Amino acid sequence: MKNFFSDKSRRMQPSAIRRMSKLAIAAGPDLISFAGGMPSPQTFPVEELAEYAVSEIRDQNGRGLQYGLTQGHRGLVQWICEYASQKEIAATPPNVICTTGSQQALDLISSILIDPGDSVFLETPSYIGAIASFRNSGARMIPVLQDEHGMVPDDLRGKLKATPPEKRKLIYLISNFQNPSGISIRADRRKQIAVMLEEFDVLLIEDDPYGEIYFDESNRPPLPIKKEAPDRILYLGTFSKIVAPTFRTGWVIAEPGLVQKLELAKEAADLCGSMLDQRILYRFCSSSSFPEHLKKLRSFYRQRWMAMDESLQKEMPKTISWTHPTGGFFIWVTLPIGQDSESFLEEAISAAKVSYVIGQAFSCDQSDKNHLRLAFSSEHPDRIQEGVRRLAKVLRHN
Amino acid sequence: MKNFFSDKSRRMQPSAIRRMSKLAIAAGPDLISFAGGMPSPQTFPVEELAEYAVSEIRDQNGRGLQYGLTQGHRGLVQWICEYASQKEIAATPPNVICTTGSQQALDLISSILIDPGDSVFLETPSYIGAIASFRNSGARMIPVLQDEHGMVPDDLRGKLKATPPEKRKLIYLISNFQNPSGISIRADRRKQIAVMLEEFDVLLIEDDPYGEIYFDESNRPPLPIKKEAPDRILYLGTFSKIVAPTFRTGWVIAEPGLVQKLELAKEAADLCGSMLDQRILYRFCSSSSFPEHLKKLRSFYRQRWMAMDESLQKEMPKTISWTHPTGGFFIWVTLPIGQDSESFLEEAISAAKVSYVIGQAFSCDQSDKNHLRLAFSSEHPDRIQEGVRRLAKVLRHN
Repeated sequence: MKNFFSDKSRRMQPSAIRRMSKLAIAAGPDLISFAGGMPSPQTFPVEELAEYAVSEIRDQNGRGLQYGLTQGHRGLVQWICEYASQKEIAATPPNVICTTGSQQALDLISSILIDPGDSVFLETPSYIGAIASFRNSGARMIPVLQDEHGMVPDDLRGKLKATPPEKRKLIYLISNFQNPSGISIRADRRKQIAVMLEEFDVLLIEDDPYGEIYFDESNRPPLPIKKEAPDRILYLGTFSKIVAPTFRTGWVIAEPGLVQKLELAKEAADLCGSMLDQRILYRFCSSSSFPEHLKKLRSFYRQRWMAMDESLQKEMPKTISWTHPTGGFFIWVTLPIGQDSESFLEEAISAAKVSYVIGQAFSCDQSDKNHLRLAFSSEHPDRIQEGVRRLAKVLRHN
Repeated sequence: MKNFFSDKSRRMQPSAIRRMSKLAIAAGPDLISFAGGMPSPQTFPVEELAEYAVSEIRDQNGRGLQYGLTQGHRGLVQWICEYASQKEIAATPPNVICTTGSQQALDLISSILIDPGDSVFLETPSYIGAIASFRNSGARMIPVLQDEHGMVPDDLRGKLKATPPEKRKLIYLISNFQNPSGISIRADRRKQIAVMLEEFDVLLIEDDPYGEIYFDESNRPPLPIKKEAPDRILYLGTFSKIVAPTFRTGWVIAEPGLVQKLELAKEAADLCGSMLDQRILYRFCSSSSFPEHLKKLRSFYRQRWMAMDESLQKEMPKTISWTHPTGGFFIWVTLPIGQDSESFLEEAISAAKVSYVIGQAFSCDQSDKNHLRLAFSSEHPDRIQEGVRRLAKVLRHN
């Protein structure tokens, strides 16, 4: 049999998280997981979702269980426009398309914009799923420095300059409480980055899955970059973190010409999303309990973040540092240079029963070995304390 | 602003169905639709789905609303294996992946197998969504003749021979009650086609969305081709027609090496499907009412097919012929050569208030103009009779 695989399939790689999950499953229920960046099921509005599900399934004798529009449920699309306006993003329905989570948005955008060899500029470290989509499309990924205030504009400028104009395609960033670092981009930098889009004739994906999950009103994130250069920015949102992942619904807000192409790409990719899921989301998000729900989320994750930050302060050796996010799910840990977080991963999971994701997984250039990502979203504060103790023990003798 | 679009996006085309839907929406509720190949909501098991939805949402305090496995819900994957065995397809979980309907299966398969310029051999006419995925991937599509017994093996052989071996990638066919023709492939031809896979070193996608919807026990389709050459065939099934489309769940059964690549491709495409949807499907399909449900579907659609076939016999001019399917959703109508079904589409929809899909939409080489597809799945038998009368009137004066 000849080799049937396409060039694209030869670029695909199993993710580090996937390899780790096998170890984690073997470790059993005593494992404390700081690995998966998943929302806590305790935050899911179970009773309301059950109520809306039943009424939407029964509505019009099941007519809502049919195929739907590729763009998404009309009511939800309209709701997304109104919700965006609260963040000073101007959007009408032709600016919006619903996707199967933000991951599909990244994949469809890659398919309509990236030819092999095109350059994508992204924070280092960056989101694993974005790296996978860009890699599969054959993009040349160019890492841009990130400090405690987010992507460094001067470094971005230098890297854009060093790239031939016709190869400059996309910048990718997570503006708020980044995955994996927890870092947000400072307001002045947002403006500086927006200016470069026109100057260097390049588009930007602003991915914002965590923006609602700020821990304090005083730490509310600055307005999205989208507002500064609406025609050049594809803004991505998702219900996965603020309602529940199972509804597999995210959205893109972009210039109508881009949205039309995304719609064509989605039509060939899966025809449409689930109208039932989208109508359940619409009912919940447009109900009076949604703003209260968001408030609860913020204090829920704040408590988990505090448990982790306090435990790290108490338990970690002095040689180890970490980020201090003001929202989101993640803390990024820096080990002394020369250490490799992969070298003791198996010991951590199998012997100490605590898991994390290795830093290298978030790197598009095989760097970040002396880092690891801790997610504080999934475990109870008591287990977070115990998990950090276990991890500190592993770190001390490695 | 430079042109940011990729080569792939330049190949994407709006489908004829999409253009037609705009006319159809404008025509209003009096329009009788023979266009969309959608299942009837009357067949959806609404009460059982509502019951399972509530219990699965509440189960384990919402834990089931989390992200899930890319491959699919374990119970459902196991069920698919058992279900396949009834059709003499041998499958264990490493052979199976769940997809967002069969459309995503086609798109993922295209992405892992097709490089621009590779050849895909497909029945003419063929399924619009498959043509779109192959076209977007840059495949060279080679139409293979189809007669009343399905794809013609001699024509396939000739076209395989005429193609350089390294460019022969995939054959695509719908084995039962094909979309758009309603034709099934005869048992002896299934064997002949299977033999060619080895002989010409090529893979086959056997798409089977309608196989369960046979009108009579005596017209039960032959066993799938999959059984004849399991390592070279990717077999596609879906719940969209036998339960409801909103659950957006189909599946691929293939050799484990192919499934692993599809899983990598799906991980970058959308991480995973909805575990809630998959668990609802699992509950319903493994319940004792599923076999009875399938029986009801068969007689339901048989009644609609009979209404259409009888009306066509009564109303159509003698110059017009059509297929006589023994299952599925579709009849394929042939007009005298020289006629173009697109030329009177607007009149049919806007004036006569009856819709269909033009034959050319199902063609990968701009042929089939003197055909049209009628779906009998969506309308009540009384409306089917009235719709055929309206259509006959349009045809008589064109």
